[in-house]
Amino acid sequence: MIPLTDSPVTRDGKVLILAMDHGLEHGPSADFSSVPETLNPEKIFDIATHDAVTSLAVQKGVAETYYPSYDDDVSLLAKLNGTSNLWMGEPYSPKNWTVDYAAELGADAIGYTVYSGSNHEPQMYEDFREVQETAHREHDLPVVMWSYPRGQGLKNDTKESTIAYGSRIAHELGADIAKVKYPGSRESMEWAVKSAADTKVVMSGGSKVSDYDFLSSVEAVMDAGGAGLAVGRNVWQRDDPERILDALERVIFEDATADEALE
Amino acid sequence: MIPLTDSPVTRDGKVLILAMDHGLEHGPSADFSSVPETLNPEKIFDIATHDAVTSLAVQKGVAETYYPSYDDDVSLLAKLNGTSNLWMGEPYSPKNWTVDYAAELGADAIGYTVYSGSNHEPQMYEDFREVQETAHREHDLPVVMWSYPRGQGLKNDTKESTIAYGSRIAHELGADIAKVKYPGSRESMEWAVKSAADTKVVMSGGSKVSDYDFLSSVEAVMDAGGAGLAVGRNVWQRDDPERILDALERVIFEDATADEALE
Amino acid sequence: MIPLTDSPVTRDGKVLILAMDHGLEHGPSADFSSVPETLNPEKIFDIATHDAVTSLAVQKGVAETYYPSYDDDVSLLAKLNGTSNLWMGEPYSPKNWTVDYAAELGADAIGYTVYSGSNHEPQMYEDFREVQETAHREHDLPVVMWSYPRGQGLKNDTKESTIAYGSRIAHELGADIAKVKYPGSRESMEWAVKSAADTKVVMSGGSKVSDYDFLSSVEAVMDAGGAGLAVGRNVWQRDDPERILDALERVIFEDATADEALE
Amino acid sequence: MIPLTDSPVTRDGKVLILAMDHGLEHGPSADFSSVPETLNPEKIFDIATHDAVTSLAVQKGVAETYYPSYDDDVSLLAKLNGTSNLWMGEPYSPKNWTVDYAAELGADAIGYTVYSGSNHEPQMYEDFREVQETAHREHDLPVVMWSYPRGQGLKNDTKESTIAYGSRIAHELGADIAKVKYPGSRESMEWAVKSAADTKVVMSGGSKVSDYDFLSSVEAVMDAGGAGLAVGRNVWQRDDPERILDALERVIFEDATADEALE
Amino acid sequence: MIPLTDSPVTRDGKVLILAMDHGLEHGPSADFSSVPETLNPEKIFDIATHDAVTSLAVQKGVAETYYPSYDDDVSLLAKLNGTSNLWMGEPYSPKNWTVDYAAELGADAIGYTVYSGSNHEPQMYEDFREVQETAHREHDLPVVMWSYPRGQGLKNDTKESTIAYGSRIAHELGADIAKVKYPGSRESMEWAVKSAADTKVVMSGGSKVSDYDFLSSVEAVMDAGGAGLAVGRNVWQRDDPERILDALERVIFEDATADEALE
Repeated sequence: MIPLTDSPVTRDGKVLILAMDHGLEHGPSADFSSVPETLNPEKIFDIATHDAVTSLAVQKGVAETYYPSYDDDVSLLAKLNGTSNLWMGEPYSPKNWTVDYAAELGADAIGYTVYSGSNHEPQMYEDFREVQETAHREHDLPVVMWSYPRGQGLKNDTKESTIAYGSRIAHELGADIAKVKYPGSRESMEWAVKSAADTKVVMSGGSKVSDYDFLSSVEAVMDAGGAGLAVGRNVWQRDDPERILDALERVIFEDATADEALE
Repeated sequence: MIPLTDSPVTRDGKVLILAMDHGLEHGPSADFSSVPETLNPEKIFDIATHDAVTSLAVQKGVAETYYPSYDDDVSLLAKLNGTSNLWMGEPYSPKNWTVDYAAELGADAIGYTVYSGSNHEPQMYEDFREVQETAHREHDLPVVMWSYPRGQGLKNDTKESTIAYGSRIAHELGADIAKVKYPGSRESMEWAVKSAADTKVVMSGGSKVSDYDFLSSVEAVMDAGGAGLAVGRNVWQRDDPERILDALERVIFEDATADEALE
Repeated sequence: MIPLTDSPVTRDGKVLILAMDHGLEHGPSADFSSVPETLNPEKIFDIATHDAVTSLAVQKGVAETYYPSYDDDVSLLAKLNGTSNLWMGEPYSPKNWTVDYAAELGADAIGYTVYSGSNHEPQMYEDFREVQETAHREHDLPVVMWSYPRGQGLKNDTKESTIAYGSRIAHELGADIAKVKYPGSRESMEWAVKSAADTKVVMSGGSKVSDYDFLSSVEAVMDAGGAGLAVGRNVWQRDDPERILDALERVIFEDATADEALE
Repeated sequence: MIPLTDSPVTRDGKVLILAMDHGLEHGPSADFSSVPETLNPEKIFDIATHDAVTSLAVQKGVAETYYPSYDDDVSLLAKLNGTSNLWMGEPYSPKNWTVDYAAELGADAIGYTVYSGSNHEPQMYEDFREVQETAHREHDLPVVMWSYPRGQGLKNDTKESTIAYGSRIAHELGADIAKVKYPGSRESMEWAVKSAADTKVVMSGGSKVSDYDFLSSVEAVMDAGGAGLAVGRNVWQRDDPERILDALERVIFEDATADEALE
Repeated sequence: MIPLTDSPVTRDGKVLILAMDHGLEHGPSADFSSVPETLNPEKIFDIATHDAVTSLAVQKGVAETYYPSYDDDVSLLAKLNGTSNLWMGEPYSPKNWTVDYAAELGADAIGYTVYSGSNHEPQMYEDFREVQETAHREHDLPVVMWSYPRGQGLKNDTKESTIAYGSRIAHELGADIAKVKYPGSRESMEWAVKSAADTKVVMSGGSKVSDYDFLSSVEAVMDAGGAGLAVGRNVWQRDDPERILDALERVIFEDATADEALE
């Protein structure tokens, strides 16, 4: 494991990742049409300069183009793999960016999706191994696993036991931070956090919900011992991203409840 | 991204790629029988010396044979992958040329086809990654993605949202220029251009149509913020390629309308 | 073969491996819910400091995180491959850790699962070959094969002849120690031990059974010429792991019977 | 392209390749039973010392064994890939010999079969790419593509358009010489020769036919602008190989007609 | 080819390979239960010290363990690939040992199985190529191909034409010695020997038969121009291996008939 205490991707050991790879994963129409100016990555980088954001997760092309102008103000989480939603078949996500090049561009951490449960799980584990070892051994970079059990063998990928399995897999395979879906309750999240041992666990933000519902789940994550949040649409699809980031800052870094944060 | 300002493959930030890999992709009978002298690549290289043409896209064997005689007058876009239309199965295009060898032969830019939506999308993304990183990191060469969503999961590959998805993919995966099919209207093209962020977007010429129809679509592309055109048959299948190139020069580089260009 | 006489993973030529990769292989709910504090790997490392334990087998992430604090008291058996039970298909176990990195972290031995009989047997043999040769040639590390015949061609993987086949395969492919399931009797175990020639054979502990039944099978293994035991749940799922380890120490290293050990 | 003017595999820009890999491709019974002494490769090497023969195409094992005794008198065309006819499935031909080793053994040219139209076309193109670039870049060796469209997508692989497609593919992928089947007429052959641009085209000899029929087709090839012939059985299955080589020499190198050559 | 005149794996140009990889290929129960002490490889190494034996073929694990004690008295034929009979599917045999490591351990020759006719034939040819070139180019080691046509396309793998095809394949792919099944008669064996050109041909011993039948087939092989025998069970499953080796020595190296050898 890479010590995260001094890493720019944490703040007091807590994490708030802003993620924007939806253009690749879902297409520009699905997630951007309600706030089309966010198609311009500069808009997202501007949002990511907010103090609450500990790092911004983007794909290679976005980082190559815009990160050089923001490297003083934004910490870069290089999301190495990704895929479109245009094809069919067992889940798999190819590596679109090498760790070496991410490090060369100044990345502060590496992000990688693993679909345990897919028939391609063995290939993904081998891909992850190469990424994890290069990051840890060659570049001292922490690794965030988007740990999303998914595939033919899994009907319901948000069961408590599946989420906890995902966070345990992240730990045993050597991730420093596990990004998992919210399992629905504080108790379930505690099980996922315990399963991850010393690997930090952050909740994946998911599709946009109301301020209160969103902040309440973040509050439950923090109460359960989680390290924070990775969020995309729930921030930049909002009319006022700064307002929700202010609230998240209070919940994640200042122990506020959802109610307090919205005051 | 590679700064394109000083690149020989642009002129005032605009692009006109002449493409001739139809012998490999479609066979010598399909596209050449009406103008058989174009089977001789020298004929195409001669056309490519026109001032309007910012680069010529050909396969390795053609470049090895003819480019040495034209390297003062033609800018070379090395089209690295390609396939015949003789086989069946999910779309895939193998790499027939390494970036290193293309650079050694004097290429000014790299071209690569990616079929998002194919069941082979993951493999193509990994192939593209290796090509893109070698081009950017080892040789400072810009990369043009022929971004053509295609495959079992896609019924209609010219929908506005599909074209825009293709141009976004090109951006997120690190292409400097996205070559996409014309989505049918200026408005749709604007969406594709916005989706590509700072990656330039050029329209793919397609099969031969009338002068006016062709130039009108190019005009719409330029109005939509597109960077230009990649064209093959619509130039070299014409009796007088120079005449249409003169007209394209006016539309692309001199802001002329289709009507003005044909005067 | 690597001489095991001076290896920290043996004691008087005998072996007691404590294994804990169940979080990856079975998930945190399956094996840990009865003793949830064992989800914390420190608990397992503490158990592994018992004198009877000659090495502790864990996955990379666990070793990276906790082994640095225990390297004086615990001998590390780096379990390189592993998979979740979430997916379906012919048995295969991907490599999640390279030998080089395991050696860098201070591993004293390498562990690798091979599923002979799976349609992926050829790939697993090639994977094992690379691991075995790197361990022996580059790092002088002994290799333990989890030799588990399994797959479409095998209905019953605990037949005497299958277990013996597994131990022979471990020998011919170059393992120093073969970890096999208990074939049900001392006589069957003798056949497995003879089949392994000079490769040591240890019994795989399996799911939790009563103290007496468990120790009796270990006694039979030792009587059959086996080198010892690899055990997980039968130790750390017990309320008092130290007590069973004391008993195992007597059976494995002091020639006690099950009855004597439980006195 | 490699300049062929000074290459030992041409004579006045013309080509007569003697090929003997039928033992691998068809087995010793199929093609050798009528003239069993040709099973001895020395017999074939002796024939290849005829002045008309510009190079001899054999597999690695044959070259390793016999070429050292003939390297003053025979020019070696290293046929790198090949397969038996014992298996079933989409056409593919594996690489049995590296370019580096062929060069080390003194090869004057490289030969490689490509089955465009097979579902394995993409893999064959990638294999060919590696071979072609190593030959051209590392060893200045010309490459002959056995360009044989074949596979599930092709019913009739001797159509004029298919043969011409094959010769175009050879050119675009960087072959110096294309070996294609005879398309049936001089006019069809002209189309194939034009399609190949500056890549030389030679006819593949095929199974044994009468002297006159055979020489007439060679005459048509030369009249069509072809560079010559690659022949096996039509030479060494004859009782008097020297006689047919004398005749071929007249047709290929001395512009004789079939009638004149047989006088 | 590697000159075999001075190689320890031949004696007067003749060959008698003792093979023992049946533990991997068939399991310890199938071939060893009648003479269980042969499960101990030392027993086989002792047999291999007989003057008639020109080399002993074993897998890596066996060689690593026992060969260091016998390297003065036994010549090692490193059998690199092998597989269990537990799985199903088209024949394939994975590489379990690299040539480099075999050479490091002191191997005098390399052995490799190739199943022509299997749908995996292309992969096996590529595997063989790498092995053959490394052996010949890096280590001057001769290569023995176990050339066994087998797979979906082959109903009867002991037809005369199939055996001859196998020996021809061994020659064209660069084997120094071809190990083939006995085709049933001296005449058929002559065809196989001729098909192999200068590659030596040895008969594969097969399952245990009577002394006379066994020696008669060896006599026929020698009369047909074969170089000798590769034998396993027909030696070490006998009560008195030395007696049959004495007889084989007379037939193979002293031109005795089966009758004379048994006197």
